[in-house]
Amino acid sequence: MLNYIHNIPTRLYFGKGQISHLTEVLEPFGKNVLLTYGGGSIRKTGLYDTVMALLKEGGFAVTELSGIAPNPRIESVYEGVRLCKEHHINVILAVGGGSTIDCSKAIAVGRYYEGDDLWQMICSSRPGRKALPLVDVLTIAATGSEFDPGGVITNLSTNEKLGAMLTYPAASICDPTYTFTVPKDQTAAGSADIMSHIIEGYFSRTPDSDLSDGIAETVLKSVMKNAPIAIREPDNYSARANLMADASVACSHIPEYGKQSTGWPCHAMEHELSAYYDITHGVGLAILTPRWMRYILQKDPSATERFVRFARNVMGLEGTDEAALAQAGIDALEAYFKSTGIPMTLSELKIGTEHFEEMAAHANRGGRLDHAYVPLTAEDLVKIYQACL
Amino acid sequence: MLNYIHNIPTRLYFGKGQISHLTEVLEPFGKNVLLTYGGGSIRKTGLYDTVMALLKEGGFAVTELSGIAPNPRIESVYEGVRLCKEHHINVILAVGGGSTIDCSKAIAVGRYYEGDDLWQMICSSRPGRKALPLVDVLTIAATGSEFDPGGVITNLSTNEKLGAMLTYPAASICDPTYTFTVPKDQTAAGSADIMSHIIEGYFSRTPDSDLSDGIAETVLKSVMKNAPIAIREPDNYSARANLMADASVACSHIPEYGKQSTGWPCHAMEHELSAYYDITHGVGLAILTPRWMRYILQKDPSATERFVRFARNVMGLEGTDEAALAQAGIDALEAYFKSTGIPMTLSELKIGTEHFEEMAAHANRGGRLDHAYVPLTAEDLVKIYQACL
Repeated sequence: MLNYIHNIPTRLYFGKGQISHLTEVLEPFGKNVLLTYGGGSIRKTGLYDTVMALLKEGGFAVTELSGIAPNPRIESVYEGVRLCKEHHINVILAVGGGSTIDCSKAIAVGRYYEGDDLWQMICSSRPGRKALPLVDVLTIAATGSEFDPGGVITNLSTNEKLGAMLTYPAASICDPTYTFTVPKDQTAAGSADIMSHIIEGYFSRTPDSDLSDGIAETVLKSVMKNAPIAIREPDNYSARANLMADASVACSHIPEYGKQSTGWPCHAMEHELSAYYDITHGVGLAILTPRWMRYILQKDPSATERFVRFARNVMGLEGTDEAALAQAGIDALEAYFKSTGIPMTLSELKIGTEHFEEMAAHANRGGRLDHAYVPLTAEDLVKIYQACL
Repeated sequence: MLNYIHNIPTRLYFGKGQISHLTEVLEPFGKNVLLTYGGGSIRKTGLYDTVMALLKEGGFAVTELSGIAPNPRIESVYEGVRLCKEHHINVILAVGGGSTIDCSKAIAVGRYYEGDDLWQMICSSRPGRKALPLVDVLTIAATGSEFDPGGVITNLSTNEKLGAMLTYPAASICDPTYTFTVPKDQTAAGSADIMSHIIEGYFSRTPDSDLSDGIAETVLKSVMKNAPIAIREPDNYSARANLMADASVACSHIPEYGKQSTGWPCHAMEHELSAYYDITHGVGLAILTPRWMRYILQKDPSATERFVRFARNVMGLEGTDEAALAQAGIDALEAYFKSTGIPMTLSELKIGTEHFEEMAAHANRGGRLDHAYVPLTAEDLVKIYQACL
């Protein structure tokens, strides 16, 4: 087991009706609120009205920033920072999913950023920077942005999508009923994202961190049990609640405590796909993950032991032929993703080979995958992309 | 899944050498430190010297409170509060195990308590009271006091041992090497305490909280794997590290998120044993747990399903006869405790039936076990005590 520091200041208000805590949570920060949200689904579901009524009742002055896109753009960060300065914002209230929360984190830090170029702030990410307080109301179980300090921002002008260490939410309101309206395809993609956050850390060279591995296996099994239920019965509270709890923990780094960091290879590769083709993050991850698994297992047979554990403890497979079991676990994962309706090839997304070389080079910039479970070069990444066609 | 609020502000510095963070952690609070510890084992191990050297180098003024007993006494709280006032203490540094940390929490809250009687403060426990900041350096994996707000204080003059909600440590330094010198019997008892914290919440009527149940099963399996190694090889880092990580999570309430609270029946019963006979907490829990299990399984056969899950997922047993499997799981747990060298009867501790009636009545004061997994009356508790003889 390796050393770690646990330092997560976010309060999570989990469950039905926890929005009742909203104004008490905002109050200590001040009365000027920047309300951020996405394309307007919160208006259709009535959550916008609920939040606005509470804010009005609490005497808050609300400035709005709407239209934050999936794969949120640096332009929204510019605009948010401008609004924060102009309206003397005390606290940001993000109502939405990972994109809205990620963008709001960048705005929170950007408010105090002293450089000229906010894109440079993303590029030169580091934790612990001064930030406006951020509160969020979560509407999809996926990225875990409600319980981590990270954010992923896209700059379409440079084909870059970068993850940055920004700021923890002060508080997150996680009411599973707000996810009842998440469509089937987004439920499936969000679930694949949760699973990827776990898988990226599970395949590590530190084998003796029992709690981390147990949490990882639990979350993976829980997602595979509950996502199909939520897809079939969108208002199944128990399924939605378990997915939401799984999502927050999956990206918190708690499942990696005590383990060697891996560089998160599938995320590195997927961010390139999203940056070039603006695809749904979870879909990209689901396509990449089984292909990455087969590639590294073939590249380094010493990885077999971990894949056997994955097959047994996560996919519930049995058998004594370890090589076959390792492969069967990967096949079962791919079949699971397919069963949730995710398009499982890049061709189905009309993505060809045209940018593979530059995507691979950028995904491995600075040798970030040198310490992956099986270390990977840019050449390896090209081959993994090719296997996804 | 039921609602919950996650709000744990404690920073955990986990791993070898994390004491290097000590002065940076204390510094923001001020220079006047109350150093609390127990019977002097930290002097023998050299940890006292290490801590004092760091404090001296950092220019801290140190006041000492030593001799805090296992099952810490209210008298130590009086003395600590007096020292805090007299020496204008800014921060308490507890170096030790659960007893030292629990006592230090009571001192931290007691410093600002406005009533005349500190024992009343324990009796009228509530969270969120003003407290001095507390930092700890942990020396045994057991109570989880390093990552929760609770403390258990004993008043021998009234035969009372009460758990109270006090204050979270601001930071906990958890270096597994400091537990290398924990004797075999204390390692076993501490491990039983960790397991009991999990078992108390695992047997609950909320069956659909996947993450909580998965964490619970993981910790139980991890303790049963690592405690025997640590007993055999006291300086096995991996075993000690896993036990330490397990301990912090076990009592954090994270393994109960989303589940109905149970009143922790074995703790309720054990606190009476410790209050009357000053026995080791973990030993009392190990004796009580399998007897409580058999009793409730016999009292309410609807509990069988959960015991079958326990037998399969925790004890690794197989079979299709559910009634037999449930019993076998309990037998296996009892055999495990016995294998770690814990005396498994009250008779071995020279405890007779003389106080069973009053202990049972006090354990169930206010009907606190009405919502246990299988609700229990004082009469039930007497029978469980009798089964432990």
